[in-house]
Formats: sequence, structure tokens, C-alpha cells
Amino acid sequence: MKAEIIAVGSELLLGQITNTNAAFISSRLAEAGIDVYYHTVVGDNPKRLEEAIMIAQNRVDLIVFSGGLGPTKDDLTKETIAKMLGAELESDQSALLSIEAYFNRTGRIMTENNKKQALVLSGSTVLMNNHGMAPGMAIEKNGISYILVPGPPHEMGPMFENEAIPYLLGTLGKREVIVSRVLKFYGIGEAELEYRVQSILENQTNPTVAPLASPDSVILRLTAKAQSIEAAKNFIAPVEAEIRSLVGQFIYGTDDDTLSSKAAELLIGSQLTIAAAESLTAGLFMAELADVPGISSSLKGGVVVYDEEAKKVQLDIPASLLDEFGVVSPECAAALARNVKRKFGSDIGIGLTGAAGPDPHDGKPMGTVWIGITLQDGKVETYKLNLSGSRNANRKRAARFALYYLIQEMKKRESGI
Amino acid sequence: MKAEIIAVGSELLLGQITNTNAAFISSRLAEAGIDVYYHTVVGDNPKRLEEAIMIAQNRVDLIVFSGGLGPTKDDLTKETIAKMLGAELESDQSALLSIEAYFNRTGRIMTENNKKQALVLSGSTVLMNNHGMAPGMAIEKNGISYILVPGPPHEMGPMFENEAIPYLLGTLGKREVIVSRVLKFYGIGEAELEYRVQSILENQTNPTVAPLASPDSVILRLTAKAQSIEAAKNFIAPVEAEIRSLVGQFIYGTDDDTLSSKAAELLIGSQLTIAAAESLTAGLFMAELADVPGISSSLKGGVVVYDEEAKKVQLDIPASLLDEFGVVSPECAAALARNVKRKFGSDIGIGLTGAAGPDPHDGKPMGTVWIGITLQDGKVETYKLNLSGSRNANRKRAARFALYYLIQEMKKRESGI
Repeated sequence: MKAEIIAVGSELLLGQITNTNAAFISSRLAEAGIDVYYHTVVGDNPKRLEEAIMIAQNRVDLIVFSGGLGPTKDDLTKETIAKMLGAELESDQSALLSIEAYFNRTGRIMTENNKKQALVLSGSTVLMNNHGMAPGMAIEKNGISYILVPGPPHEMGPMFENEAIPYLLGTLGKREVIVSRVLKFYGIGEAELEYRVQSILENQTNPTVAPLASPDSVILRLTAKAQSIEAAKNFIAPVEAEIRSLVGQFIYGTDDDTLSSKAAELLIGSQLTIAAAESLTAGLFMAELADVPGISSSLKGGVVVYDEEAKKVQLDIPASLLDEFGVVSPECAAALARNVKRKFGSDIGIGLTGAAGPDPHDGKPMGTVWIGITLQDGKVETYKLNLSGSRNANRKRAARFALYYLIQEMKKRESGI
Repeated sequence: MKAEIIAVGSELLLGQITNTNAAFISSRLAEAGIDVYYHTVVGDNPKRLEEAIMIAQNRVDLIVFSGGLGPTKDDLTKETIAKMLGAELESDQSALLSIEAYFNRTGRIMTENNKKQALVLSGSTVLMNNHGMAPGMAIEKNGISYILVPGPPHEMGPMFENEAIPYLLGTLGKREVIVSRVLKFYGIGEAELEYRVQSILENQTNPTVAPLASPDSVILRLTAKAQSIEAAKNFIAPVEAEIRSLVGQFIYGTDDDTLSSKAAELLIGSQLTIAAAESLTAGLFMAELADVPGISSSLKGGVVVYDEEAKKVQLDIPASLLDEFGVVSPECAAALARNVKRKFGSDIGIGLTGAAGPDPHDGKPMGTVWIGITLQDGKVETYKLNLSGSRNANRKRAARFALYYLIQEMKKRESGI
């Protein structure tokens, strides 16, 4: 099956928004084993949309449309397709009820043109919209499948994943489900990770194992197809175990975990409190941790000691220590961790100091960072980073490495190592 | 002139990257008065690229290609176009020198296939790449203009803006330059801003005035065309003055300014030091300010007092104040600002307290935030926010509002109001 994604919307052609929908839909189709050959964007113009559809009909057998399903006169995707396929537009009762419920829920007044959103192509399968009003549609005609989904990404995403993909697998005669499992890594680069799990990447077909890198972390996405969710999970489990045996020490979480959600989960779960002393990161570590609701029972607070005087006055870092070892040193990181723990009366103390850049700091090259962590037992671990990014990339990465090392230290204690 | 943007790259069709280039190129073409009618994406496949080019040749008179100019065998954009236009590929001396210089600068070894990147279409105008190796090209044939730019956005952007746009304006016979001026707003929504400057938005043609909203701020982009940069600036100046007379109090900066760069500029320029006490933002305010290089002379540091005990112990907020007014109150925000200023011996103190959510805090609804600011004169100003976003959107907006109010307070002092 060859697919084309047609996004409809003049705001895309004006460059006011980016076509993230095409990337999302493409990745989900790839996962389902459907090859995407083209992306097209056209404006809110029925003639040009019609021409684009004719071109697509000549070169693919699945066309996914995103956008143009709304209530205004600019929204003409389904009208244009109805005309081309010789289909009627008819009001769908369940869609209409869902739109009315949406207005009731948000306390807004439903105007007449909103009813237009409940119109669907006769003979189509309606795809439910659980995050907005316009329903999606799926229809087949002359051997070509047409899928219509709304433009707003937060409506389109769940609909495409939960309604359109199962429809497509059914059409393809595959009574299959797709299950994905994401393993999240920190402290290892994409190249090294790929090298270490090379044989799995190359030989695995069900689940497929695909690496994806974001600017500062790497994930492996395991995707299995099977007759049932249960069976798909059974395909994934042994491959995940094999990956963990090879590179498990770099895995901090799975699926929707973030470094801060995972750290918060461990802190809250073990009823430990934490305080931080931040120099180069200037609050980023604490701010990331405070992203997580419910963290107030664990995060007592901390001190940003951006200049040397603040380190001495606010956290009693001895001038002699700074003279002997410097501000960017394991000794300073350890003292920051120890002293902020004492000052806030917390179970865990963490200290970050380093040269963010653009200039060297304290004689240490840009990107040198020391992190100190002390847990309940009072022992202090220090970690050194040599980062190579821009000033702000270095600051963000330092805060995230601190979360990563915190997770590792807490896990060590948990498992009694 | 009608344009189509063809992005070449299988990674786009796999959904591994998003086609941000199309949005960027579209916005710059719109500014130059050129209408974009289509975006197309094809993979690294010469036959399908050829077919896409034939379709484009039938419907537009400018085709912009992004991607496929690199050194590997997958990179075939210029080879395919050369074949279709009957042009030769010839080595461009200046491009070759620039590639050799790039390798010298980065200390890497130049391999033979890198020379392929210096090949350009015979008869084309070479567009210099100041951020990478592959040169761009511009060529006309049978009334159709072809522009080729590399795929990496940080190479493509400057090349398109500084090389391709002037080329296109020349081709169009417009001996014109385009000058843009961006006015940046905070503390006013897009709808209200548009309402207040409605007559300007509707009637201005040179410069055009376009609003653009990001999740938490609004900008107005003024774009003038003229025979010279000087003349274009003269078109912009009176319109900017008119906008400032209407909504100047919400403008915090221009062009590349950010809230933190502007606050830092005012702090450093007036040699003032600052310390912050953060509750709900947990370090975000300080971390944003520390984004700016050179801030270490002004930012002394601060305290994150996330729980109530920390507020009492670390910043001497009296229990009686918290009992009488609560944690989320102007009194608490003022005391945080005053006490952190004293504790750190800074010129300016700033305090943030509020209910980030998801639950109400201290009996105040989610989104209620108080900010206190005290400057050299010891007077304290407090500001209330009623934010309506998610927990983390509220925390980010609170930190940014604090930067915005800080800028306003410093400007007031500067102008002696």
C-alpha cells in the first residue's frame, strides 16, 4: 500500500504553522508497514485541492487528508471529496450528539454552522474525535482508501492512532494490533547505543527496534504486531530484556516517563526530601523537578549561588576550599550538596557547579561541570561532565544529568548495591 | 509569481523529521510578495522526484528545492534537475575553496566524495553557504525559476534569506530590498492587540504589519519594501511610532530581544544586582535570566522556597504573616522580595508565589500568582496574575511575567517616572 498525505490549509502555505501532522501520520503509517511516498500541502481552495486529489489518485492507493473539517466557509475538504467521489454529505447522529456535548461541557453557545461539522460522507466509517468537534472519516472507492482527519494536532493525533490505524489494518485484512514500547536512555549517545545493540537493530523484525534521538537523549521504540495486545507484548518482552542486559544502566524509564517524572516518582515513593544548590544551572534543576505535580512533599527548595560571594555567604563554602580547588571542582560540588542538605534539613542534597560558557570559568574550559549528590547515608558521590554544546544547551544538559544521576543513586540504594 | 516548495528526503516521509523548511521558506516568500501554492515532499528517489518536478512545472513558475545537495549517493536533487534541464554539473571554484576551508576549520579530513558538493548546475547563480558545505543554486529555464538550497535548517535559513530572496527580487525586476522590524509584546493577548491596532493592520501596505502569536507572547512584524535599506527604514519608522503611541506600554523589545536578554541588558547597563525568591516557579525565573551570557555581574542568586517551612526558615517570612494573609498573597510576595534582597545584599529583590495547579493552593484557585519587586529605593510593587493554563504553562508564564514587570519597573526608574 502506497500512501500520500494531503494537508489542507492556507496558513501552512503562508508559513504561519508547520506541518507537524504529516510527520506524525508518516511515523504511524511506517509503524503499520504502510509506505508514505508523498506529502502535499494545498491551500483552502477547492479547485487546487481537486487537482491535488486527482494527482494522488494516479500515484497512490491511500490518501490521508488533514485539515479543512471545521465549521467555517474555508473548511472544504469533505465537500470537495464528496463531489469527487459522488458521495452525499449526511448528518451523523453520534457526531452531532458529541458536538452538542462538547458545547455543554465548555459552557459555550452552539451556533448553526457548528452543525456542519457533524456532516459526514455517506457510506464512510466515522472516526470519533475525543478532543474536539469535527469527526474524522474513512471511505474506500475504486480501490483507493481515503482517510479524513481534523487539522489541530491534539485532535488529529489520538484519532489517527486509535481510530484510523485500526481501520487501516482491518482494510488491509490484517486483524492485527500494534503495540509500542519506548525505552528511554540518558548518558549515552545515539551512535554508541546503536553500536551496542547493533545485532538487535539489524535482526529484529517483530518487534522492530528503532532508535530516535532528540537533542539530549535517545530512545528505542519497540513495535510489535500480533493478533492480540497480549501476544504483541509477549513478542516485546524478551527483546526488551535482551536490550536491558546490554545497556540497562543507561535506561532511566519507559513510555511517558521523563527524567523529572521518574526522579519525582522515586522521591515521592520513598518519602525522601531533597534540596539543591545550583550555580551554573541557576535553578533549572529545581524547576525541572517542580514540573511534576505532587512534588511539594519532596522538594523543600534550595539556593541559587550564582556568584562566588553567594556560595560563601549563603552556603558556608569555605574561602580556603575555593582557593585550593576552585569553584569548578568535585570538592565544591560535594560541599554544595552537603551544605544545602544541612541548611534545608532534607534527606538528599545535590550541588551543581561548572563553566557554562561562552568563556572558561575558574580556569576550567567551557562545558566542565561537577555534580555532587549526597543521600541519607551522608556519603557524597561526585560526577564530572565534559559538555560540548552552547552555553544554554550545557546548562540544560547539566540539570538533566543531575536528574539522571539522582535516579541512578536512588535506584542503587533501593536495590541495596 | 506562483511558487511550489519541493522538499527532498526519505526521513521526512518516515516522519523522523518535520518539514520546518517549507514553513520558513513560505514565510519569507510571502514577505517578498510571492504566493506559495503548494508544498511537496518526495523521498530520495530520482524517478519520483522527476515526476514531482514535471507536475510543478505545469502549475507554478518558481520551484524551490530543499535537501538532497549533500555528498552521499542518496543526495540526487541537482543530478535530477541537471538531467531534466539539460544542464551540466561543473565544479565551482569558490564553493570548492569554501568546502576546503570548512574542513580546515573543523580539523576534519576531506574525502573525495565531499568534492561532489562543489558541483553546481552550469549557468546557475551560486548561493553561498556560510554555515555548511553544500552551495545553493538559482537558475532559470523556459520561464521557470529553480532555487536549490540545502536541507539542514541552520544552513538553509541564512542562505534563503540573504542569497535567494535578493536573487528572486532581482529576477522579478524589483530592485528592491526588504527590511523587517519586529516589535515584541508581553502582557497583552493577540486579540486585544489586534483590536487596538486594527486600523493600522487593515490600512498599512508598506510596511505591512502582521501579528504573530506564540504560546505566551505576541509580536508585530513590520515589513517594508524600498529601493534602499535606508528608504525602507524610513517607511517603517512612522508606523512603529504610531504603534508605540497606541500600545507602547506592552512592548518590551524589538527584533532578537527576549524577555531575559532585555532584562539582563537593563540590569547590566545600570550595574544593578538582583536576587530572587521563588516558590511556584522553583528557579525558572533565575534560570531564564541566566540564559544570558554576562549576567554573572548582576545575578547574585536566590532561594527556592518551595514549601512553607522553607519560606519561614530560609527567608524569615513570619508565621503570623502567612497565617493572616496566606502564602499566595501580595504580602507574602512583598516579604519574599524584601527579604531575599536583604539576604543577598542585592539592589533588586523579586518574589514569586502562587498556585501553579493542578489543585488550588492556600485556598487560592489554580493560576493565582503574586509577584513582588523591590528596587534600590526600597519601595515594593506587587502584581497579581490570573493564569488559565496548565500547571507548567502557568509556571513558565509566571516567570516571564516577572521578567516583564522587572523590565517595566527598571524603565520607569530610568525615565524618572
